[in-house]
Amino acid sequence: MGKIQFQCDYNEGCAPQIMQRLVETNLEQNIGYGEDPHCEHARELIRKVCQVPEADVHFLVGGTQANATIISSILRPYQGVIASTTGHIAVHETGAIEHSGHKVLTLPATNGKITAEQIEKCLFDHYHEDGPEHAVQPAMVYISYPTEYGTLYTKQELTDIHKVCREYQIPLFVDGARLGYGLASKESDITLPELSKLADVFYLGGTKQGALFGEAVVITNSALKRDFRYFIKQGGGMLAKGRLLGIQYEELMQNDLYLTLARHANKQADRIREALLKKGYKMAVPSPTNQQFFVLPNDHLKKLEEKYVLGIWGVADANHTIVRFCTSWATKEENIDKLIKDIQELQEVKQ
Amino acid sequence: MGKIQFQCDYNEGCAPQIMQRLVETNLEQNIGYGEDPHCEHARELIRKVCQVPEADVHFLVGGTQANATIISSILRPYQGVIASTTGHIAVHETGAIEHSGHKVLTLPATNGKITAEQIEKCLFDHYHEDGPEHAVQPAMVYISYPTEYGTLYTKQELTDIHKVCREYQIPLFVDGARLGYGLASKESDITLPELSKLADVFYLGGTKQGALFGEAVVITNSALKRDFRYFIKQGGGMLAKGRLLGIQYEELMQNDLYLTLARHANKQADRIREALLKKGYKMAVPSPTNQQFFVLPNDHLKKLEEKYVLGIWGVADANHTIVRFCTSWATKEENIDKLIKDIQELQEVKQ
Amino acid sequence: MGKIQFQCDYNEGCAPQIMQRLVETNLEQNIGYGEDPHCEHARELIRKVCQVPEADVHFLVGGTQANATIISSILRPYQGVIASTTGHIAVHETGAIEHSGHKVLTLPATNGKITAEQIEKCLFDHYHEDGPEHAVQPAMVYISYPTEYGTLYTKQELTDIHKVCREYQIPLFVDGARLGYGLASKESDITLPELSKLADVFYLGGTKQGALFGEAVVITNSALKRDFRYFIKQGGGMLAKGRLLGIQYEELMQNDLYLTLARHANKQADRIREALLKKGYKMAVPSPTNQQFFVLPNDHLKKLEEKYVLGIWGVADANHTIVRFCTSWATKEENIDKLIKDIQELQEVKQ
Amino acid sequence: MGKIQFQCDYNEGCAPQIMQRLVETNLEQNIGYGEDPHCEHARELIRKVCQVPEADVHFLVGGTQANATIISSILRPYQGVIASTTGHIAVHETGAIEHSGHKVLTLPATNGKITAEQIEKCLFDHYHEDGPEHAVQPAMVYISYPTEYGTLYTKQELTDIHKVCREYQIPLFVDGARLGYGLASKESDITLPELSKLADVFYLGGTKQGALFGEAVVITNSALKRDFRYFIKQGGGMLAKGRLLGIQYEELMQNDLYLTLARHANKQADRIREALLKKGYKMAVPSPTNQQFFVLPNDHLKKLEEKYVLGIWGVADANHTIVRFCTSWATKEENIDKLIKDIQELQEVKQ
Repeated sequence: MGKIQFQCDYNEGCAPQIMQRLVETNLEQNIGYGEDPHCEHARELIRKVCQVPEADVHFLVGGTQANATIISSILRPYQGVIASTTGHIAVHETGAIEHSGHKVLTLPATNGKITAEQIEKCLFDHYHEDGPEHAVQPAMVYISYPTEYGTLYTKQELTDIHKVCREYQIPLFVDGARLGYGLASKESDITLPELSKLADVFYLGGTKQGALFGEAVVITNSALKRDFRYFIKQGGGMLAKGRLLGIQYEELMQNDLYLTLARHANKQADRIREALLKKGYKMAVPSPTNQQFFVLPNDHLKKLEEKYVLGIWGVADANHTIVRFCTSWATKEENIDKLIKDIQELQEVKQ
Repeated sequence: MGKIQFQCDYNEGCAPQIMQRLVETNLEQNIGYGEDPHCEHARELIRKVCQVPEADVHFLVGGTQANATIISSILRPYQGVIASTTGHIAVHETGAIEHSGHKVLTLPATNGKITAEQIEKCLFDHYHEDGPEHAVQPAMVYISYPTEYGTLYTKQELTDIHKVCREYQIPLFVDGARLGYGLASKESDITLPELSKLADVFYLGGTKQGALFGEAVVITNSALKRDFRYFIKQGGGMLAKGRLLGIQYEELMQNDLYLTLARHANKQADRIREALLKKGYKMAVPSPTNQQFFVLPNDHLKKLEEKYVLGIWGVADANHTIVRFCTSWATKEENIDKLIKDIQELQEVKQ
Repeated sequence: MGKIQFQCDYNEGCAPQIMQRLVETNLEQNIGYGEDPHCEHARELIRKVCQVPEADVHFLVGGTQANATIISSILRPYQGVIASTTGHIAVHETGAIEHSGHKVLTLPATNGKITAEQIEKCLFDHYHEDGPEHAVQPAMVYISYPTEYGTLYTKQELTDIHKVCREYQIPLFVDGARLGYGLASKESDITLPELSKLADVFYLGGTKQGALFGEAVVITNSALKRDFRYFIKQGGGMLAKGRLLGIQYEELMQNDLYLTLARHANKQADRIREALLKKGYKMAVPSPTNQQFFVLPNDHLKKLEEKYVLGIWGVADANHTIVRFCTSWATKEENIDKLIKDIQELQEVKQ
Repeated sequence: MGKIQFQCDYNEGCAPQIMQRLVETNLEQNIGYGEDPHCEHARELIRKVCQVPEADVHFLVGGTQANATIISSILRPYQGVIASTTGHIAVHETGAIEHSGHKVLTLPATNGKITAEQIEKCLFDHYHEDGPEHAVQPAMVYISYPTEYGTLYTKQELTDIHKVCREYQIPLFVDGARLGYGLASKESDITLPELSKLADVFYLGGTKQGALFGEAVVITNSALKRDFRYFIKQGGGMLAKGRLLGIQYEELMQNDLYLTLARHANKQADRIREALLKKGYKMAVPSPTNQQFFVLPNDHLKKLEEKYVLGIWGVADANHTIVRFCTSWATKEENIDKLIKDIQELQEVKQ
């Protein structure tokens, strides 16, 4: 009855397997704050899939919370975090990082990505200034995998960034709110264990990938582990019924559920992309994951919006809009069928 | 098999009615961030039970988050919040209030409560200092209903505190993490609509009262409403799938579920109290709600701990411990039966 | 003996008139924290020269302190300050603004300046976003007069910016660390009373303009006055012997000393500019105040650096450097004579 | 003509020797921000008198600034600083410590002092709590020498506190706003080099001890030295004309000026104390330094206030007030003569 929603990847609840486990365990008695057996088990499963037996794993509720908690646990007060101009922490978190006292030092993004060269220049320049203490000290790197535009860093690009970070002895943090969609992409050339070696800290996003909510923070660099639970509590992120996070990640990390759900989303996104390209629309960004960004004539957009809720990403020009089509683990194939049919029926594009 | 847990009121998941609704609505598509119809409906229900048609209602995930978000939305940087020395924000939130830049100005508590007189003296003294700007300006009052020790302010006490706040033009904030247990207590002499008139902002706790998680913030003072959603987002408290909070509060606020669950808990707590008093143990604090604090000889405590998990609240003396017995909406009557039997069988107390 | 210094405008102590008054008043007994008669008198003088009888005037020690104190007194936690990418608060204050929790929202600068159009677009875009609460709310404008590159806004430009601020009901803050050099410039078309009407808050810089230290903050918008002394104290800016600031500003604000000192500096800067232009060097920025930015061949720079300390402002290209020549109230004419002679003797420029 | 002021120790400007040097050096050209030869020389002199050749020395403008800068350079966000309830950071800095995100964990003071036992209990209790991450972690100790009540820790007391700090691996910070008055006291049993060994960081106060302003921070623990200049700059404490601090400390640290000035003040304070005791007034606190706290009948106080400005420290009872008499390096002997005469002539005390 209502419109079909493709504007984001958190329109539904959670994967049925997860809901079932929540029902089954509902009246169990568990200790609070993430110290229950479900959380313990989920941590063990995550360490295993990452192949980092000594990693610390913590469960948080959402992405902004995870980003702010991790970043403020790492930086000293006069330090800032390097990020792309399109990084989530730079634009869509209401200044949560600044609220914790830190500047986001932005570098111009290309398709959502920044390069090792840019990062190195930023660091080099800071330390070669006359009086570096008059500027914020860049002290960690934040990137998203996939990026906010659905694009992917290659293994080589990540390795190069990792090397610059090592050289300057600063940590690399990978925002993995959509990590599964990235790893499950046909264009990804990196595995979770490989990424776990390159990042000092990252998270396996749950909210957008089959859970009701939840982000599993994995700290592989032992220098960053100290007292992390204090940060969680202080930041308001320590869920009383932590079990809820443990139970969800127990399910996601078993039977390859996490990547299976992601593959489904990517596949549906591929179908949308193909339909749009076939029709002659221009990609705004070449994304191989569950988010597709296309430039649409405003009248075509209007037509589609009669039946679908889409993400409006910006103005391309007076007559065109950048539109996000977003699929998820929950996207129904028949809804994609309908969307494709409606795309095909749009009046011929003249750009 | 495992021990029966009475150490806190968040050992289980959620009330079965709530779980059922979460299952039923799981594959609905909803807009995110609390702007969906479930949240809207739940807000309407809350405004109705509070009898404040113009109140703003926001849903947050947990108590520390709610406290920090509310307090930092009210205070200017040089201002502090008045609280009792035993207030949750003063002792059990890892300095979340200080993290947002504000001092918690503590006043000595009696059974967890502070008085209008104490508050007035604090305010009067500040403004009559020579050079008040050298000290933190007290600018709001935080109390908990019920308190962290399960005790209740009377309607008169709340009215008196409200009056002092009006006189000094500062808001009164009531932490309602366990509000239901308070309102449902046989000793409570105040109703939710009455409390809604006395407080400028408060919350209807969900986490400890039948929900999986959630706190419903009610802002009745319109001066405090501005841009509250920015605060929620910045503080990492804006749940992507806000629907989860809406759905839970829709259930809690219908069919008197919120208070029905609370009455059950209080009744079981009454049974524990009677058993302990009958046995001759001393109350540490006279609580008429779901938390009971008693002074137990260490050997008796040890005996009980063979079968039960209890809350250890502090050392009374070399041989005695202050113990918290906590019931909840989920407490099973047969477990209370067992506990009472085991209390009766404890070796005679010699204090 | 040592090199002559032109790298900044705070190489010397203070104007002799000021030093003399400090000596004369040294053993007077005065009440602390800026409540003494000297401060009171200086405030009165400032209100008079600004022609704002009801202005609040506060004395702070330095510029970073003044900027951070003023900005954090105005913004609510989720709000940010609009500034140019080259604004002092954006680049040279080690993140002092972020440390107080606020994002600096930068707009691309042209010769150090931003326009009313840019500011309006920033504000318009924010409020027309879908879900503005996911981004930092722009809530005040920061500009410098003169800018960090010595350039000046025209009266019209300031009036336009003022209008946008009024339209969106946000304050305009003018950093006047070098205000005198701006007002005393032959190219300035605005007076102090006019500027006082356009800005909601600004400061008359002392440190760089004849005082040992000190910045006189003038708050003309009464909505911004409340409890400002608390902010000063909390920020560590309340000088115990506040008299020192009062005494210095008493002198600066009498007998036109403030502008007289500035005119001297500008005149010497004019002489440097003419010499450099005559020699064929390219201005990096067209500045009509005491700072001159020129592009010099590296070998010429090296030659000059044998006798002079100059400000290195950046790399122009592989063979050229952007150099700052800075004069002040204390610059000796004979030192400018020497510098001009040495410039003239530099080997012919081939660019 | 005006009243003679004994209400604090910052009523006058600076010691004549210092003023003379400021005059002599006024037109010297110096590099800014504390990197000039005067600062370098002053640092060297301080390292020498402290007998810590490898200490880092930084100059700040005032005490609140010094405290906030030092404390925020040491603590991680979830950590707090242990202090006495009467500690300056706990009561008279408008929450500057909380503003930087940290809780001041207060312990009850006895005559302004706290004990090693109290500190150990605080630390022990924190780490033996169930779930220490729910509370602020105590992570450094702040004491003042002399205390805010003029009292002195003995060498043994300081050694004991030092030991507890070592045991828990947290630093000891000594606020030395009046350090000279403490070290110069006849009752002090500790030398500056000894104190430099026991404290991890402390400062030699200038503002109250002969300088116009200034606090010399000495960091002896090398773990605390990293990037301290960033903190100074971010906190608004990096004086542009840093030379002013260097010049003042060059004088203070030569010819035993620092302690000579302090001895004078203490001697005048001794005279006041003797006169008051002889007259039968009760000491509020037994202070052997330049601050004397006495309980005076209100009518006697009123009589004295006709000629003198005194510090009002609090209400003793309905008819008595706690009064602070404060001397300084600048106190004139003849003014003490007058005060003593007036004390003697007060109508006989009946307490």
